[in-house]
Amino acid sequence: MNRMKPLNPSYAAKIADSFRQQAVMSLLGAKLTRVEPGVVDITLPFRADLTQQHGYLHAGIVTTIADSACGYAAFSLMPADSEVLSVEFKINLLRPARGETFVARAEVIKPGRTLVVVRADVFAAAENGAEELIATMQGTMICLKK
Amino acid sequence: MNRMKPLNPSYAAKIADSFRQQAVMSLLGAKLTRVEPGVVDITLPFRADLTQQHGYLHAGIVTTIADSACGYAAFSLMPADSEVLSVEFKINLLRPARGETFVARAEVIKPGRTLVVVRADVFAAAENGAEELIATMQGTMICLKK
Amino acid sequence: MNRMKPLNPSYAAKIADSFRQQAVMSLLGAKLTRVEPGVVDITLPFRADLTQQHGYLHAGIVTTIADSACGYAAFSLMPADSEVLSVEFKINLLRPARGETFVARAEVIKPGRTLVVVRADVFAAAENGAEELIATMQGTMICLKK
Amino acid sequence: MNRMKPLNPSYAAKIADSFRQQAVMSLLGAKLTRVEPGVVDITLPFRADLTQQHGYLHAGIVTTIADSACGYAAFSLMPADSEVLSVEFKINLLRPARGETFVARAEVIKPGRTLVVVRADVFAAAENGAEELIATMQGTMICLKK
Repeated sequence: MNRMKPLNPSYAAKIADSFRQQAVMSLLGAKLTRVEPGVVDITLPFRADLTQQHGYLHAGIVTTIADSACGYAAFSLMPADSEVLSVEFKINLLRPARGETFVARAEVIKPGRTLVVVRADVFAAAENGAEELIATMQGTMICLKK
Repeated sequence: MNRMKPLNPSYAAKIADSFRQQAVMSLLGAKLTRVEPGVVDITLPFRADLTQQHGYLHAGIVTTIADSACGYAAFSLMPADSEVLSVEFKINLLRPARGETFVARAEVIKPGRTLVVVRADVFAAAENGAEELIATMQGTMICLKK
Repeated sequence: MNRMKPLNPSYAAKIADSFRQQAVMSLLGAKLTRVEPGVVDITLPFRADLTQQHGYLHAGIVTTIADSACGYAAFSLMPADSEVLSVEFKINLLRPARGETFVARAEVIKPGRTLVVVRADVFAAAENGAEELIATMQGTMICLKK
Repeated sequence: MNRMKPLNPSYAAKIADSFRQQAVMSLLGAKLTRVEPGVVDITLPFRADLTQQHGYLHAGIVTTIADSACGYAAFSLMPADSEVLSVEFKINLLRPARGETFVARAEVIKPGRTLVVVRADVFAAAENGAEELIATMQGTMICLKK
């Protein structure tokens, strides 16, 4: 699924640049931790000000990193003169989002000239390194010509 | 659809209390602006540090207020000794999330003892008061007994 | 939401024609029962050979009429030289699909040149005429130029 | 993900029995072709009376086999005295559903006492045996005690 060829040789720089412009990533403390053709990871350390009423990471914040990871996984396969936007996504929250660090791992399922279908798994890592799948997203991204 | 009877007469106080415990709502600057049986609004003023790469509100933040509104709309119909969690949701991003203020309006579609199906529309209001539908969510919430 | 203007004055004939070509509609016994700009109903009488293991209409058949209704609601707003395809949809099954007749009522939420976002509610009608909402779908259709 | 232990040692017989009671499977010509703990395949040969307006398998029929495969994958992990129902699912239609045979391969992502999250990929096989992923579903099933 992942041996996908980027149309834009500078895809990694373009994604890093776009990520820096996502002001909300900096507010949340999220980092871009992997960028390959069709595959992007975003990592978010736990912070008490990102939580819901039980002290776990809010489902919307889980979704925020999963959505950006999906968008950039799709973007990595788009031509140089394009923009990416989320059309829609669906996420299942599988377990309470508790942990020290959260990683959203997105992967393109089906590239396309206009629409790109992407999946992201979100893992929570405990202090001892144990990882647990806490959410899974399936979504659709669109390629817009600048 | 909305003439739903709350099982917990103090549902509004319980929701206000839970909302205060969602630390992320305070980080984002979101407010609970309507609480009725089966219907909840959450309002979020635009802030530059909540944006994606084009300067619009990030889809994940749109989703965060829609998810909390859905959760509390469902919670308003649950018994006193219960908790609410998001099982899953799907959101379509319909237009760029630009505006002065954003309102997520959630409404219960189908109450149930265990699962509650909810919809939320998210509107962006311009400075001149014009409102535009920018996103719509359909999701499932679960009632957990404490 | 529904005062939408069709770009193709013969949209109703084009939809009726396309519906006749959906061989599966005839296999299931489904009929096109309402065609307006942005709004389409498909009606399906109950039949024992359309059921799942408890004798209710199979969720996939509920989905089949909801998907076609969504596709044609979107198609009603598309230009003459276009085709419609389903990109994706999500459906919540709200109640057991029992009844004499099922109606999927689709409505365009957000028209667009390429993508059209649509919702469908599916109702079951009992012999005495009482209607119950049994499912609700939210989906995305794409306009392809011929 | 798949080394899941069935709670009901006769899960395979129970699924085969339930499948035979899904009258619509027989109408469509679908067969249960793999039953393992947490994993179920359903196979459907192409038939002209299952098509949409372009002569491809209708998205609703693709969905019907994916939904049943998901339901039975979840059911394989449920206790003996239970029933399974679809709560909701979302499907992306990735490519035109053309081929000689279609296989929906479902796999449990997250088992649970009440809710089970499942994924299904649907493949189309051409006469020469080449397989193509045409759709992917993510859904939620519920376990009901009899």
